[in-house]
Amino acid sequence: MDGSTPVTNDALGRLTALLAPEMQATNQAILARMESPVALIPQLAAHLVAAGGKRLRPLLTLATAKLCGYEGERQISLAACVEFIHTATLLHDDVVDESTLRRGFASANAVFGNKASVLVGDFLFARAFQLMVEDGSLEVLRILCSASATIAEGEVLQLTTQNDLSTTEEKYFEVIRGKTAALFAAACEVGGVIADCPAEQCSALHRFGMDLGMAFQLVDDALDYSAVQAELGKTVGDDFREGKLTYPVLVAIAAAQGEEQAFWMRTIEQGEQTEADLPAALELIRKYDATARTIARAEQFIDSACAALDGFPESEMRTALIDVARYTTARRF
Amino acid sequence: MDGSTPVTNDALGRLTALLAPEMQATNQAILARMESPVALIPQLAAHLVAAGGKRLRPLLTLATAKLCGYEGERQISLAACVEFIHTATLLHDDVVDESTLRRGFASANAVFGNKASVLVGDFLFARAFQLMVEDGSLEVLRILCSASATIAEGEVLQLTTQNDLSTTEEKYFEVIRGKTAALFAAACEVGGVIADCPAEQCSALHRFGMDLGMAFQLVDDALDYSAVQAELGKTVGDDFREGKLTYPVLVAIAAAQGEEQAFWMRTIEQGEQTEADLPAALELIRKYDATARTIARAEQFIDSACAALDGFPESEMRTALIDVARYTTARRF
Repeated sequence: MDGSTPVTNDALGRLTALLAPEMQATNQAILARMESPVALIPQLAAHLVAAGGKRLRPLLTLATAKLCGYEGERQISLAACVEFIHTATLLHDDVVDESTLRRGFASANAVFGNKASVLVGDFLFARAFQLMVEDGSLEVLRILCSASATIAEGEVLQLTTQNDLSTTEEKYFEVIRGKTAALFAAACEVGGVIADCPAEQCSALHRFGMDLGMAFQLVDDALDYSAVQAELGKTVGDDFREGKLTYPVLVAIAAAQGEEQAFWMRTIEQGEQTEADLPAALELIRKYDATARTIARAEQFIDSACAALDGFPESEMRTALIDVARYTTARRF
Repeated sequence: MDGSTPVTNDALGRLTALLAPEMQATNQAILARMESPVALIPQLAAHLVAAGGKRLRPLLTLATAKLCGYEGERQISLAACVEFIHTATLLHDDVVDESTLRRGFASANAVFGNKASVLVGDFLFARAFQLMVEDGSLEVLRILCSASATIAEGEVLQLTTQNDLSTTEEKYFEVIRGKTAALFAAACEVGGVIADCPAEQCSALHRFGMDLGMAFQLVDDALDYSAVQAELGKTVGDDFREGKLTYPVLVAIAAAQGEEQAFWMRTIEQGEQTEADLPAALELIRKYDATARTIARAEQFIDSACAALDGFPESEMRTALIDVARYTTARRF
């Protein structure tokens, strides 16, 4: 902790306010570029846009571009592109996870069916790549294509670790590095690249995004065992029901004694669950302080993320980014 | 029909033989670039590679590059890239169509689950874009990104026309132009682009691929109502069961009299089918000569495809490409 900046719940709001014109232009670009003569595509995409979300990833591209003194307009369509990649993975996640709630709204696949979610996700991926091609930088293309492949690898790896009690902490970190942190890292690095920053600064932005993404996912995984559904905007216990080996569960499993080991074996490894099992799992998570230990691990990543910005001169934008990072472990929704 | 070249069943075999070294290099590139530290990815991808397929699309890239006198090696990785895009759409199609057979093997999702099919498909898409970025041509990227978006649009459009008896022939052509012909067109155009062909020759190759793809899909749709499963390598009647408004059905519906209209209304529009309905549908298809009329429509596209190659000087490769095009409407598998 550098302790120099107060961490308030409004950190994200302040960053968004600093970037209000760029964010508005990005939202317009998102709406304009999800258009298609095939009506179901903007319909389904608009369903996700209406659900809103924090637009954290495009915000990172806008913020890092500004941090690096970039004065052009390329960050707008690239931020839209980052959001399209994110939205596409959400659409495919909804199919994959059989989740019925996403951001508190009925998930797209519950309303439109699995088929449409897969195909509209594919469209958004392709449209994202079209936006990059229009931008014309092979370096930006390299960064975001590589991130897209890494995301898919992380998601597949998560699939293969699901229900596998022997999953290590190292493997878990590999999963979230792919499925979440890689896009945060790419979103941040792109801001530096279009500003023609030196390589070491681009690497530092990559590192900032990567660590921030790791922390973000750790907190997300903690919230799935702690927040109430209304706060979270999604069903609590999703990860438990799907037998995902997330950090809080890894903590509780490592500490499990006697009967508890059999409990995790039955509910996670064999996937045999009754209605009484989620409360029992939440009790074990509480018993071993697994949520707090997850947040503590996230804070280590945030320290590392903030340190990555040391090489950038003091500025309003640097302070706002550090505040947002610090706020990550304080968020409750 | 130009009648100058004999159409034999071996047309595809001869084109493949002419491009044997390039095809072997492409197969090696495909195997090498589907590698990932996440073991399930090459496992699942290898499942599709084992299933084989004709590799028609990458073959088109190799052939058009050679037709245009290209002597470098860029066509190899771009052909692999075209096959990755195709394989990704197959994986996502398997999820979408709930088909249980693909190329005569159990479909990937029947063996590995829907989740893995979606995510490994995403990986292959991303890997395809990485291959293009390595190639470094923004023009190639533009062509293949645009084709990818068009494929997704075609697939979504197909979804919205499913079970809709009011689907027009025009709408059907829009669907297959997107879901099939766009990638054929892109695969052919790319060969001309890397050979630095003049724009009008690249357009001609695009047109050749587009018309060939239209014919290919028409024949595919005809075969779904005519070939036996063993010949086709996939379940006959898939399209009927899924309520797809393909060309043969459009022909039979347009000609339907009295009771027949109620039959299509019940089986396609309402999706209420019994075991006796597929034989009844096949009978109506036969009654109105719908398969032959579909093949005849495909032949018009082939005539147009072959005409697109008029501007290229006589060569072994041009003859082989025309033969393959002519062979399209003769194939029975």
